[in-house]
Amino acid sequence: MLDLIATRRAGGKHSADDLAWLALGAARGEIPDYQLAAWLMAECLRPLDLDETAWLTQGMAASGRRLDRTGLPHPWLDKHSTGGVGDKTTLVVLPILAACGLTVVKMSGRGLGITGGTIDKLESVPGFRVNLTPEEMLAQAARVGIAEAAQSEELAPADKALYALRDATGTVDSIPLIVSSILSKKIASGAEVVVLDVKCGSGAFMKSEASALELARRLVETARRCGLKAGALVTDMRQPLGRTVGNALEVREAISALKSPDEGRFCRLCVLLAAHALLMGEVAATQEEAEARAREALAGGGALAKAKAWFEAQGADAAVFERDDALPTAPIRRTLTHEGAPAFVEALDAGIIGEAAVELGAGRASKDDAIDPAVGFEFHAEIGRRLVSGDPVATVHAASEADAGQALGVVRQALSLGNRPVTESPLVLTTL
Amino acid sequence: MLDLIATRRAGGKHSADDLAWLALGAARGEIPDYQLAAWLMAECLRPLDLDETAWLTQGMAASGRRLDRTGLPHPWLDKHSTGGVGDKTTLVVLPILAACGLTVVKMSGRGLGITGGTIDKLESVPGFRVNLTPEEMLAQAARVGIAEAAQSEELAPADKALYALRDATGTVDSIPLIVSSILSKKIASGAEVVVLDVKCGSGAFMKSEASALELARRLVETARRCGLKAGALVTDMRQPLGRTVGNALEVREAISALKSPDEGRFCRLCVLLAAHALLMGEVAATQEEAEARAREALAGGGALAKAKAWFEAQGADAAVFERDDALPTAPIRRTLTHEGAPAFVEALDAGIIGEAAVELGAGRASKDDAIDPAVGFEFHAEIGRRLVSGDPVATVHAASEADAGQALGVVRQALSLGNRPVTESPLVLTTL
Repeated sequence: MLDLIATRRAGGKHSADDLAWLALGAARGEIPDYQLAAWLMAECLRPLDLDETAWLTQGMAASGRRLDRTGLPHPWLDKHSTGGVGDKTTLVVLPILAACGLTVVKMSGRGLGITGGTIDKLESVPGFRVNLTPEEMLAQAARVGIAEAAQSEELAPADKALYALRDATGTVDSIPLIVSSILSKKIASGAEVVVLDVKCGSGAFMKSEASALELARRLVETARRCGLKAGALVTDMRQPLGRTVGNALEVREAISALKSPDEGRFCRLCVLLAAHALLMGEVAATQEEAEARAREALAGGGALAKAKAWFEAQGADAAVFERDDALPTAPIRRTLTHEGAPAFVEALDAGIIGEAAVELGAGRASKDDAIDPAVGFEFHAEIGRRLVSGDPVATVHAASEADAGQALGVVRQALSLGNRPVTESPLVLTTL
Repeated sequence: MLDLIATRRAGGKHSADDLAWLALGAARGEIPDYQLAAWLMAECLRPLDLDETAWLTQGMAASGRRLDRTGLPHPWLDKHSTGGVGDKTTLVVLPILAACGLTVVKMSGRGLGITGGTIDKLESVPGFRVNLTPEEMLAQAARVGIAEAAQSEELAPADKALYALRDATGTVDSIPLIVSSILSKKIASGAEVVVLDVKCGSGAFMKSEASALELARRLVETARRCGLKAGALVTDMRQPLGRTVGNALEVREAISALKSPDEGRFCRLCVLLAAHALLMGEVAATQEEAEARAREALAGGGALAKAKAWFEAQGADAAVFERDDALPTAPIRRTLTHEGAPAFVEALDAGIIGEAAVELGAGRASKDDAIDPAVGFEFHAEIGRRLVSGDPVATVHAASEADAGQALGVVRQALSLGNRPVTESPLVLTTL
C-alpha cells in the first residue's frame, strides 16, 4: 500500500492489478483506513487518468457479488441520476421503459443533504418493500418488468467502504472517485446499458455546466472502457425539477404524471431519459422513434399500468393510485402568494430549496437522521412565469406552524423576481 | 477537522489556532487517524507556508510538557543532525561546548534505516543510562554541564503521533513536516539556541544540495519565527563521516578524537559545529574566536575531561576511555585491500554503506529490530586517497564470516576508483 500511496502522490500510473488489489483490500477491511485516506487525498490532488478510473471501477465492481441477469431479456438496463432537488424521474422512467417491453432492474440510494433519494420516496408509500434480495429482484423483474430496491451490501462493497472514508476525509468531490463509485455499482448490478442523468446547478453536486459536462464525459468514456454502454443527459438543476420537493409529495406528482401526462419540464425529462435509454439499448433506431415510443407509453396508459403492477409487486397500497390521502399528508399547509406589481420569476434556487427541505425534515443532514415522508414544498410557479398580485408561488407542507413559517421565509430567499420577461431555462444542456 | 482538510486540500491558509488545535488533537488521540492521514497527504501536495510551519511547530511544542531550564546558565543550547552514516559528532561537540563553559541538555533518537542514532551509540557503552527523567537531566546538566537522554514521551507528543502516521502513509518527506518535527522537540526541550547539521548526499535524507539547502533555510527561518535562535551547516554525506560506521566503533572513534584530535574530516566538523554554536549563542564574537575556543577545548583536554564526567554521571564504565575492549567487539574482522595498479578513491557511497551496516545489524530496517552494538565498518581510505596494491580499504566487524563476506562485497560496490587525482569533497557546503 505504501507503494501505491507513493505512486499516487507522485502522480504516477497505477496498474489494473494495483487498483483491483486496492478495491478488494478496501472491501475486506484489509487496508488500514489511514492508508486509504492518504491515497484518497493524493488521488484528489493527482487524479486518476481514464485507464486508471476504469481499472478502479472494474476492481470495485469485482469486490463483491455480481447480480446475474441471465434469463432476463436484453438489453439489461439501468438508469442513474447524480442527484437533485425534486428529482423523481425514476418513478416514471422505469414504467415507461417497462411499457416499451424492456425489463429494468435497479438499485437506488437514500437521500443525503439536499439530494433526495428514490428509496426514501418509495418508502413514503404505505407497504412498499425496498429491501429485496437479489433473487427476489430478478424474479420480480421477470414477472412485471421492473424491480427497484435499496442498494445491496453484497454488491460492490468496496464502494461502501471507500465512500464512508471519502465522506469522513473531505475527499468526496473527485471526478474519478465519483465515476468509479457510480459505475461500479451499475456493473455489479448486472447492467449492460445505462442512461445517466447528470444534474447541473445550485441544487446538484456539480454547480457549473463545465464540471457537469466533464463528469458526464468521464462517466460515458469510463463506462465504455468497462464494456458498459452508457449515454448521458446533462440537465438543469438551477430550479427544482417539477412541481414538488418532498417524498410523498413527489410520489403524488409522479403518479399524476403517469395518469395525466403534461408538457411540463418533469414529464418532458422523463420522456427524454426513457428515449435515450431506448436509443442506447438499440431498441429504437432514431431519436424521433425513441421519443415517440416513450411518449406513447406514457400518454397511452401503458406506463401507468406497469407502475401499478410494480408497486403492487413490492407490497404497496394500491390506493395511492386512486386517492391523494393514501399517502402521508402533513398537518400544516401554508401558501406564499405574490403581492404587488406584476413580476417575472428570474430564479427559484434549487440549492436553497433543497436545504429548506432538509430543515423541514424531508431530507437528512447526516446519514442516520430520520425523515418525515409527508413534508416538503409544492411550487405553483417556475422560472419565466409572470406573477400578478395574489398568485400562489409555493405551498409548504410542514409538521408545525413554526416550520412552515421558517420554510416560507427561505422560499422568499430562493425566489428572485424581475420586471422583464425571462426566457425559460433550458431543461437539457447536453446529450452524450 | 473536515474544514482543515478542505483548506489544506485547496492550498488555503490555516490560522495559528487551527494548527494548535490539530497538534493537540493529534497528541491526545482525539482526531481520527484517517482524517490526520488525509490532512498529511494534502500537506505534502499543498505544503504549509512559513507562517503555518511556525504555527504548527509551536502547536506541536505546546502539545505536551516543556522542559524548564530555569536556573541553568544561558544560552540554553541544543544541537541537531538530520542524520547520516557515521555521524557521531554529538559525542564530541557536547564535551567541547561544556569545556567552553556552556551547559548542554539534549534529547536524541534511535537510528532507523541507514541513519544512525546517538542513543544507540551511547547504549553500546556498558552501563550507560539513556533513560533520564527531565528532573535527572536538569540536575545532571547543572552538575557536569552535559545531559543527553532518549526522547521523552512527555515532550511534544504531537510529533510522536504525527510521525508514526507519516511513516505509515508515505508522507514523511515534506519539508514543513520535517521542520516542525525537528523544531517542536527542540522548543519543548527548552532550547533557546540550536545548531543544525543538515546532511546532504546519498547517506542523508536530503540527497541533493538544493533540497538540503532548502531544508536548512526553512529550519532557520521557522526557528526564528518561533523565537528560537538557529544556525545551520549543510554538510557532506556522500561518504560516511569519519573512519567508522557502527555503534561501539563510532564511540571508540569519538573517544579517540577527544584523546588525540587530528585534522581529519570528523574532528574538523566537530570543531565547526561547536564554533557555530558558540557564535549563535553569542559566547564568541567572531568565527575565528569561536573556532579557536572550540579547537582549544578539544586539543587542550578540556573536552575529554567533560566527556569522562558526562559518561560517569550517566553510569558508563570509565574503562571505555582506557581500553578498546571495554566496548563490545565483534568476533569476525575482515579487511578489504586494494589490489593492482595505483588508483584514487573517487567515491565511497554513504547510502550503500549505510544499507550494508543495517544488513550487518548495526542499524534497524524497522523500528522494533534489535541491533548489534559491536558490528560495522572501519575505513582506511576516503575520497581523494591514492591507493597502491596491498593498501587496506575497509575492515568489516561482523558477527559471522558470512556477514563479513557479504559486507565486503557491498563495500566493493560502494567504492569507485579512478586513475586520476581526485579533489577531496567539501566538508561544509553552506553555513547559515
